[in-house]
Amino acid sequence: MAILLRPASWGLFSWRGYCSRGTQGRLSAGFVEALKAVVGSPHVSTAAVVREQHGHDESMHRCQPPDAVVWPQNVEQVSRLAALCYGQGVPIIPFGTGTGLEGGVCAVQGGVCINLTRMDRILELNPEDFSVVVEPGVTRKALNTHLRDRGLWFPVDPGADASLCGMAATGASGTNSVRYGTMRDNVLNLEVVLPSGQRLHTAGPGRRFRKSAAGYNLTGLFVGSEGTLGLITAATLRLHPVPEATVAATCAFPTVQAAVDSTVHILQAAVPVARIEFLDEVMMDACNRHSKLNCCVAPTLFLEFHGSEQALAEQVQRTEEIIRHNGGSHFSWAKEAEERSRLWAARHNAWYASLALRPGCKGYSTDVCVPISRLPEILVQTKEDLEAWRLTGTIVGHVGDGNFHCILLVDPEDPEELLRVQAFAEQLGRRALALHGTCTGEHGIGLGKRQLLPEEVGAVGMETMRQIKATLDPQGLMNPGKVL
Amino acid sequence: MAILLRPASWGLFSWRGYCSRGTQGRLSAGFVEALKAVVGSPHVSTAAVVREQHGHDESMHRCQPPDAVVWPQNVEQVSRLAALCYGQGVPIIPFGTGTGLEGGVCAVQGGVCINLTRMDRILELNPEDFSVVVEPGVTRKALNTHLRDRGLWFPVDPGADASLCGMAATGASGTNSVRYGTMRDNVLNLEVVLPSGQRLHTAGPGRRFRKSAAGYNLTGLFVGSEGTLGLITAATLRLHPVPEATVAATCAFPTVQAAVDSTVHILQAAVPVARIEFLDEVMMDACNRHSKLNCCVAPTLFLEFHGSEQALAEQVQRTEEIIRHNGGSHFSWAKEAEERSRLWAARHNAWYASLALRPGCKGYSTDVCVPISRLPEILVQTKEDLEAWRLTGTIVGHVGDGNFHCILLVDPEDPEELLRVQAFAEQLGRRALALHGTCTGEHGIGLGKRQLLPEEVGAVGMETMRQIKATLDPQGLMNPGKVL
Repeated sequence: MAILLRPASWGLFSWRGYCSRGTQGRLSAGFVEALKAVVGSPHVSTAAVVREQHGHDESMHRCQPPDAVVWPQNVEQVSRLAALCYGQGVPIIPFGTGTGLEGGVCAVQGGVCINLTRMDRILELNPEDFSVVVEPGVTRKALNTHLRDRGLWFPVDPGADASLCGMAATGASGTNSVRYGTMRDNVLNLEVVLPSGQRLHTAGPGRRFRKSAAGYNLTGLFVGSEGTLGLITAATLRLHPVPEATVAATCAFPTVQAAVDSTVHILQAAVPVARIEFLDEVMMDACNRHSKLNCCVAPTLFLEFHGSEQALAEQVQRTEEIIRHNGGSHFSWAKEAEERSRLWAARHNAWYASLALRPGCKGYSTDVCVPISRLPEILVQTKEDLEAWRLTGTIVGHVGDGNFHCILLVDPEDPEELLRVQAFAEQLGRRALALHGTCTGEHGIGLGKRQLLPEEVGAVGMETMRQIKATLDPQGLMNPGKVL
Repeated sequence: MAILLRPASWGLFSWRGYCSRGTQGRLSAGFVEALKAVVGSPHVSTAAVVREQHGHDESMHRCQPPDAVVWPQNVEQVSRLAALCYGQGVPIIPFGTGTGLEGGVCAVQGGVCINLTRMDRILELNPEDFSVVVEPGVTRKALNTHLRDRGLWFPVDPGADASLCGMAATGASGTNSVRYGTMRDNVLNLEVVLPSGQRLHTAGPGRRFRKSAAGYNLTGLFVGSEGTLGLITAATLRLHPVPEATVAATCAFPTVQAAVDSTVHILQAAVPVARIEFLDEVMMDACNRHSKLNCCVAPTLFLEFHGSEQALAEQVQRTEEIIRHNGGSHFSWAKEAEERSRLWAARHNAWYASLALRPGCKGYSTDVCVPISRLPEILVQTKEDLEAWRLTGTIVGHVGDGNFHCILLVDPEDPEELLRVQAFAEQLGRRALALHGTCTGEHGIGLGKRQLLPEEVGAVGMETMRQIKATLDPQGLMNPGKVL
């Protein structure tokens, strides 16, 4: 197991909590005892297997285990852990469900991984105010199960059953964002433990208003900060009423351009589409095989509409007119829950359907997002690049937001192919930047896109971000090596 | 004309651009010449009348004029002005249309007012991408006039024809926000001149994607920063399709509770209401007189719906059912443009209707926002407080967001009444804070709510905001004395 060598001194302070025995024992016995004193012995582990489990997420980034894993049970413990680590110069890595895709939990400089999943209470539900307060161990699905009989739901859906605070940390979004927004739009307040151990409520303690103009938008600053500014220990989220009815649909297009044009026209017609997902013909073929669908092997849109029965009928009719006008065909409307679930299960299993194209291979997902008018050209370029780089990849995307993923299949035993994948992904990121886009629509910068961030935000943007990081984390110990 | 005395040294640096001759001439002749060298002589004024015009907004905050006013014509000039002022330790106050309500433009420490209204070009319109880039002199109405024939509009509507960059600086919202969001939700990118003169693009230069997870959300940080972190010199905004049809309505309620309950039920039923405004019976009476309406003198809702003809019919029917169920009556639906305009003109003239209740008086508006379930109690308390403090006031609010304004009428010649108004407003702010709310939903902190901000965000919140301010504006020269 590879642990990066770490200089004895880091940033402004030396790493006093570390002894020089190397490998697993880099934390001094006294420091591990201090961790146990905070959370209790059963909630601290330095076992290799546990540390390895916490050294990677679902991406291909190399496992880089922390030196210890701790499971606090309440925010007071998180505060004490942060103060303890910070006082000793030990890196702190927040950990949720480990479902990230950019290596955000890799302990590149070792340190203490703070696994927040044992704090999993729903603290407060205010149905009339459409708000809920959750601890970091509450996942998206757990919350929606809890809300099921109350006519409310939390719509942000990145696919994985991620923890909601982890989703806030990453700035996640997903298939419903075209209508309901991303985490940036749906977090009302965050409780954050700062590196010093101080507790910050980004919108003020106990606040759960829908809007405010009071001072700097700290909530917005911490959403998407990827654990590099503090540990999110509670989130106040905005809930939405469950739609009265839902219809899903698929349709095929002669070209990528026709599918994107249809999307633009649907948005221009103010059809309040809830989901509008693009799959290229390779992806569609893979989904057909993996999920036993029989859709056309062509550029395809998966759509979903939410509303009253009457509103849905009109939305569906308008959409069908627009799609037909743009040369779409093979409509298939699914109204029954079972049929809809099958369609969206197929869409959400796109990752596994892609993996099944090359058994034994691993997947790597790109995540660019461009202004929607530039989607056709970048999609066509991407498909040409796949061929030029001799890579197998599928394309699936949240086309209403201009965000798409190219899922590349890589033989983990082939370092040369891995290099090609990395080069391809970097080129795709640069193509998006050239089209006024971003290198990451929803996965975050993490480890994998740090080289692209300066090209995206420019020198002054980087300097401003570095200044903010240095202000809130002067020792650079919060999830070090990520984002900047 | 009162100019505050200012110490010779401020913050870390002495105020080198100032000479000791007092009054109008606090800026040295050499410094004024340097300003003229940047923007040209006709674009600099130190005339008392001009400085006075720029020393106040539409609020009752005392006029505090800057020492000079400059009108840059492009961003390069803004950069040079900022660097010049900052280098000489002179405060910088950005100025848009001057329609703010919290004294955000008062030059409490003198300095140079940078009036950005001569930069008024629409730089780039991308209809397919639903985005536009505007300079700071472009107002809300000017943009919507420009967009009129393109099927697009910018919905954030604070009432005043404010500049869009000024609205971004204040974090404005208004009547449409229940459906379309606030400025926080509709700004995609900002060009900001930092105090050093450096140009920051908050989402990266030229970027206009709909969502991103790339680094810290600097756009969110600068929206609502009230000119205290930098000068906004361009904004990339999210546009929306013009609704196919619109219906407005009014209806009366027996109680405040019935009006708020109706609002909650309409939101729970997922009726996509575009505007839902509350007027108390005093406000309604004033509007009837001022705008020649004949609505019931009772707690009232003004509503607006956007959608297709068919969708509207259903929305209106559902709403009517809900309202009737809650005891509402005297429905009046307005479908024709002229009738709708008359209704909404009456709503937007609420300020003047209130002023007409006590001719010769001035108005002062509170701006609290609470979780919607707490609205009835705070509204009832507020009406009781008005009586207890012997004040005349009307109440109008964006009830779908939990945000309302109490417009107080004050005799400017009566200092004792003015003190009562201030005490009332502060008490109302504290009531909102006690109900998990905010002291300002959309007007900003400015000068008037600085004493409430620490109570709202707590000590750690204040410290975090101060750290960010100190990092980005180490000399404290950007719109000093505001927010913090």
